[in-house]
Amino acid sequence: MLVVEGLANKSLVETTSDAIVKLIVDNEYPVGQKLPNEYELSQLLGVSRNTVREAIRALVSRNVVEIRRGAGTFVSQKMGIADDPLGLTFIKDKEKVFLDLIQVRFLLEPAIASWAAQNATAGEIETLGQLCDEVEQQLLAGENPVKKDIEFHTQIAKCSKNTVVPNLIPIINAAITVFTNIEENKVVSKTIEHHREIFEAIKTRRPHDAQDAMLLHLSYNRNKLRKSMHLKETSFLK
Amino acid sequence: MLVVEGLANKSLVETTSDAIVKLIVDNEYPVGQKLPNEYELSQLLGVSRNTVREAIRALVSRNVVEIRRGAGTFVSQKMGIADDPLGLTFIKDKEKVFLDLIQVRFLLEPAIASWAAQNATAGEIETLGQLCDEVEQQLLAGENPVKKDIEFHTQIAKCSKNTVVPNLIPIINAAITVFTNIEENKVVSKTIEHHREIFEAIKTRRPHDAQDAMLLHLSYNRNKLRKSMHLKETSFLK
Repeated sequence: MLVVEGLANKSLVETTSDAIVKLIVDNEYPVGQKLPNEYELSQLLGVSRNTVREAIRALVSRNVVEIRRGAGTFVSQKMGIADDPLGLTFIKDKEKVFLDLIQVRFLLEPAIASWAAQNATAGEIETLGQLCDEVEQQLLAGENPVKKDIEFHTQIAKCSKNTVVPNLIPIINAAITVFTNIEENKVVSKTIEHHREIFEAIKTRRPHDAQDAMLLHLSYNRNKLRKSMHLKETSFLK
Repeated sequence: MLVVEGLANKSLVETTSDAIVKLIVDNEYPVGQKLPNEYELSQLLGVSRNTVREAIRALVSRNVVEIRRGAGTFVSQKMGIADDPLGLTFIKDKEKVFLDLIQVRFLLEPAIASWAAQNATAGEIETLGQLCDEVEQQLLAGENPVKKDIEFHTQIAKCSKNTVVPNLIPIINAAITVFTNIEENKVVSKTIEHHREIFEAIKTRRPHDAQDAMLLHLSYNRNKLRKSMHLKETSFLK
């Protein structure tokens, strides 16, 4: 009895959240667009301001909107992509998780690089080249390139024209990169070399070379990672 | 100034959320475990009950915990896997999204089926066989097997022993299955036949056959889906 009451209550807030998401999607609100205020939303959706407030809070947690104190509620830059969307926090064995994430990258990224070589627009390739340069500059300056590195791989996913992978790649890559030892000189020069090869293959529309360059890049990284972990291989890593 | 204030405030709730997640992970609370109450958490974490309440609300939205009215706060069955974690709600062209999701399944699931054939335990195979039977029964009874079908594919991911894919597959598959036309007799019999082949290959430890059976299953489904959509191929679908 009590549980049902809880569910019913949750449901009204959820319905309101859904209605606000629909408002954003239907009106094609861009990132940073201000939403109608609490009063306006409550009038528009026919629910109490309290329900609107709770629904907005839920959407903040889902990274759909963000509240800027004193300014209002805005469409979030994170565009509804959750923090730790795969629930990896709950997997205890972190070293195994890192290797498993790389294994997933092996399945996804070589194919994505190949699609990118086939489908990228000139503008997308230009952006990819800039990111390639920026990662290189950071590496040579001894800075941590993790964020830019993820942007580079995400841009390749955008070039692929598959609409799902640009949201998937940053999630998977963000969860791994902490582990890589970027201080080693050899890793730095190899990363620069691999990124450049991937970029050139995409730029000159060579899908198979893009795929192979990505495979080489991932193989090198996994090998380094595994050595740094002193982990034994499991059968699916062969 | 106002923005910074907002961020600082958000940060305390976030820190508290993180501390509660850590509590769950460190103590290995199982699904359904009751958390300490609001007062106890506020004492334990040294923050106000109001902050605890907001942190818990954020964790409810992230599917980490659930509130049962009058009973308390419990570790959620959803284990922190977000609703629409990929933010697909925000992609307008839904038909393209469906085909793109299938394309991602092509990259992931044949390899996962092959790992499953190598790594599954006897108990996991038994569960997979039961799910295979249940999907078949639902199909033959004319019921909608979508939920069980996702469970079948997720169980294959569990059999693979990669810790990430059991969280990834249900997300990707749940977003697609709405579209499949399960009323057609031929689709029913093909689905039964394909699932059975995948299951038998995993059970008898034949990785390549498992991979091929999965590839066949996906190819058949994509072909049916594309026909029902009357969509043209894009280059990466070739």
